[in-house]
Amino acid sequence: MKWAALVAGLGLALSAQAEEAVDLVMVGKIRQEALHRSQVADTLQHLTEQIGPRLTNSPNMAKANAWTKARFTEWGLANVHDEAFADFGRGWEFSSASLELLTPRTAPLHAVPKAWTPGTGGPVEGEAIALTLKTKADLDKYKGKLRGKIVLLSETREYKPGTEPSSRRYDQAGLGELLNFPMPAGGAEAKAKRVKEYRERTELAKATNQFLIDEGAVAALSISGWDDGILRVGGGGSRKVGEAVGVPELVVAAEHYNPLLRALDRKQIVRLRVNSDARFTSQANDPGYNTVAELKVSGKADEVVMLGAHMDSWHAGTGASDNGAGVAVMMEAMRILKAVGAKPRRTIRVALWSGEEQGLVGSTDYVSRHFATYPEPTDPAQKALPPYLRDATGALQKTRDYGRFSAYFNLDNGSGRIRGIYAQENQAVMPIFKAWLAPFNDLGASIVTSRNTGSTDHIPFDRVGLPGFQFVQDRLDYGTQVHHSDLDTYDHASPDDLKQAAAIIAAFAYQAAMRDQALPRKDVLQD
Amino acid sequence: MKWAALVAGLGLALSAQAEEAVDLVMVGKIRQEALHRSQVADTLQHLTEQIGPRLTNSPNMAKANAWTKARFTEWGLANVHDEAFADFGRGWEFSSASLELLTPRTAPLHAVPKAWTPGTGGPVEGEAIALTLKTKADLDKYKGKLRGKIVLLSETREYKPGTEPSSRRYDQAGLGELLNFPMPAGGAEAKAKRVKEYRERTELAKATNQFLIDEGAVAALSISGWDDGILRVGGGGSRKVGEAVGVPELVVAAEHYNPLLRALDRKQIVRLRVNSDARFTSQANDPGYNTVAELKVSGKADEVVMLGAHMDSWHAGTGASDNGAGVAVMMEAMRILKAVGAKPRRTIRVALWSGEEQGLVGSTDYVSRHFATYPEPTDPAQKALPPYLRDATGALQKTRDYGRFSAYFNLDNGSGRIRGIYAQENQAVMPIFKAWLAPFNDLGASIVTSRNTGSTDHIPFDRVGLPGFQFVQDRLDYGTQVHHSDLDTYDHASPDDLKQAAAIIAAFAYQAAMRDQALPRKDVLQD
Repeated sequence: MKWAALVAGLGLALSAQAEEAVDLVMVGKIRQEALHRSQVADTLQHLTEQIGPRLTNSPNMAKANAWTKARFTEWGLANVHDEAFADFGRGWEFSSASLELLTPRTAPLHAVPKAWTPGTGGPVEGEAIALTLKTKADLDKYKGKLRGKIVLLSETREYKPGTEPSSRRYDQAGLGELLNFPMPAGGAEAKAKRVKEYRERTELAKATNQFLIDEGAVAALSISGWDDGILRVGGGGSRKVGEAVGVPELVVAAEHYNPLLRALDRKQIVRLRVNSDARFTSQANDPGYNTVAELKVSGKADEVVMLGAHMDSWHAGTGASDNGAGVAVMMEAMRILKAVGAKPRRTIRVALWSGEEQGLVGSTDYVSRHFATYPEPTDPAQKALPPYLRDATGALQKTRDYGRFSAYFNLDNGSGRIRGIYAQENQAVMPIFKAWLAPFNDLGASIVTSRNTGSTDHIPFDRVGLPGFQFVQDRLDYGTQVHHSDLDTYDHASPDDLKQAAAIIAAFAYQAAMRDQALPRKDVLQD
Repeated sequence: MKWAALVAGLGLALSAQAEEAVDLVMVGKIRQEALHRSQVADTLQHLTEQIGPRLTNSPNMAKANAWTKARFTEWGLANVHDEAFADFGRGWEFSSASLELLTPRTAPLHAVPKAWTPGTGGPVEGEAIALTLKTKADLDKYKGKLRGKIVLLSETREYKPGTEPSSRRYDQAGLGELLNFPMPAGGAEAKAKRVKEYRERTELAKATNQFLIDEGAVAALSISGWDDGILRVGGGGSRKVGEAVGVPELVVAAEHYNPLLRALDRKQIVRLRVNSDARFTSQANDPGYNTVAELKVSGKADEVVMLGAHMDSWHAGTGASDNGAGVAVMMEAMRILKAVGAKPRRTIRVALWSGEEQGLVGSTDYVSRHFATYPEPTDPAQKALPPYLRDATGALQKTRDYGRFSAYFNLDNGSGRIRGIYAQENQAVMPIFKAWLAPFNDLGASIVTSRNTGSTDHIPFDRVGLPGFQFVQDRLDYGTQVHHSDLDTYDHASPDDLKQAAAIIAAFAYQAAMRDQALPRKDVLQD
């Protein structure tokens, strides 16, 4: 490259960065509406305390679909509708569950059923027996020994004292660390290992479900994932019609579970009474539903900027930080844009996803139908894997709307304040995001990291080469107390932080919708 | 004072300090038995997981009295017996309790009954109503409004994020700070205020108990003292025959309680179902029982060194750190002394107190009958106050054994390692304790602070001028998670720390029992 060309190149890059236009008048309106006339706390309170937890396809999730649609309509949004994704599975819910120790002493134990496990049909009693299951072959050891028994599926776990605060915000050092890009790890060998572990784990779970039914066990218990009496729980059994749902299974507080195994170690008889009113609320592999709404535009209506967060939750808490918070913020961002009279050039569309907790099901389906997808694998073994573990199946199949898409913004790391954004290795968006964040530096949001982050609904966009982003958020107690736990409740959420997030996301959506070009894209790396 | 006398005086003081004889051979044996052949974890596990919580006068407490006597007898201790303190009150226990939200949504709520409140006699349902009770006069506002209702007695409490670790050990700075003696605060005015507050609080509680019965409320709920789903609970109702026990009352996890009040604030109907099998286990003001045992001696059998810890607990957890830990350590100390063949010159006596949680009842009674007491007040208003709030009633009445008593050592600040001892302003014991602690410096126990500490069973000794001491212990999660809570369980206790504590306490008991003189005393400060 010649010197003149280099300078010209530099000049172009610098001017692109310097010229990113930010409508500070509109940002000012958005901030004022977000900070002074916020409805985000009320929205979150309704989702969590009036509706409650929102397991995918549960009656509560349907209530949430309906209520959010009503709000969007009331706020004057357009094209408000639910959008189905086929064949998700059955609905499930529970209202009460109890576990009682009867021998060697009497005491109530703190427990909650796993989703998609059957109820007990009233109280059932049995002696506890501890199973050690590493592989399917281990099941044989227990043949003929489980009839009428309550099986303990987990080993004891030593208590770890809490020597770190449960709630944390980023300090400057922590934010600075995020600016370093870690060298990619893994490769083919690591992926093969993950595939193997996934298959073994899912096959053992299926085999155990069937085995416990066949052997006549009356219930199963496992240890909560966290200490301190917190009930951290996901799914068990199966949501799919025709698959074995196993026996009623509850997750027990660690402090109540460990003593059961210690009593068995002392060769004592442990008797328990279990009562779970868990129930499947439908008998077919029903579709799930994302709720979608749009802000009417004054220009390029076919071009789209999307906001989203998943509305489904696990069932032990009320899904406040995971992810009522994200839903309330995205709804609030739409409300703010409407309230400030924004007339964006591109369509701004919000999606409240379902099925996120079961593997980004709702958003993945949406992206494949609306924008792009890889061919479905033909090998049943590949089909059985989640998309991120599959081998490459060929060229990306794009819809017409693929080219008209600008960007997707997601919020799903708890209720903590936005401190920046993950650029997902899209170098070209970084100066743009820096410019967009500048008017929010005084609210604590400043960094643009090239890092990737995963595990939520921007990934289906990212996987097909569409610009999809998740924000950097203060962690608070997301990873220590509330994620998938009974403490994921309104009180643990932080409404002030959500006001800030709604302001930033409304501004990002507006900027993306007003920009001359769609956001720059990066190359898709197919495994 | 002449110079020669001053030097002689100094010399005497220094030599007393230098000459405190420590039997390092015996200390070595004690350490080895304590650290390498410990039974303290098994003892604690039995108390907590085989017997369970030990509310004063409950059937479990009787089991604990019986089991500890059997252990003491098995270990060859002498004079093993229970010692009654009259007129404590009724026994009480519960095995199961549940609280369910029925409207505006259905969900199980985490709750536990207050001790000495009645059960519901099966499930009862009712609408919730929030009461605001600051004084007895406030009750009038609710006359005629509570029939069939479930009353909410607490206000909402804003959630406080956990920005400090739940578990902490002392660092050098923290230990150093303990060496500074804070100037006494309070005085007559402060005491009068405490008396007034005590009277108002107890009178309001009594009046409310009667009012809720009279008005036909079906149950009462209050908020747990701590966040994070922890159930922190003490007593309600009344243990005394003839006093109003109120209606069934449960303490509810903060994250489940706050939403009830928020729903009422939104003018919604809140319906609840309560089921508590809480029950009084006797119908008379029964005596309580301390368990006592002694190590036979080779010399001054009438002179006594005492060890003690309270065996009674609250009922939500299993009383592991409060105070199964102290009991296990004191039992272990006696076992160690027996195992190493100690032949002390003074009697070493251990007392496992009851009624501590209701105001040091068992130890106070013991000290007054065996050693010394102040005259009982004649004024009924004074009689109704706990001893520490009463006015002075006259000269101390001493028994013959008062003069023969050497020292009492107590452990009741959780299961954390001993880091030193509170000298309770007894300057003369400080160099002695320093010498005794020296062989345990390498196990983290080093400081002797002149400070006072209270709230446990050394206080009745201290109050009558007998040397009574509580050790400085690492706090761990005692004051953040386990104190009087459902997390006060075996898993949260620290057996390694208890081994260290047993070694130190066995050595202290031995040193005190072998010393030429009884431990020096301080003047009694009567209020």
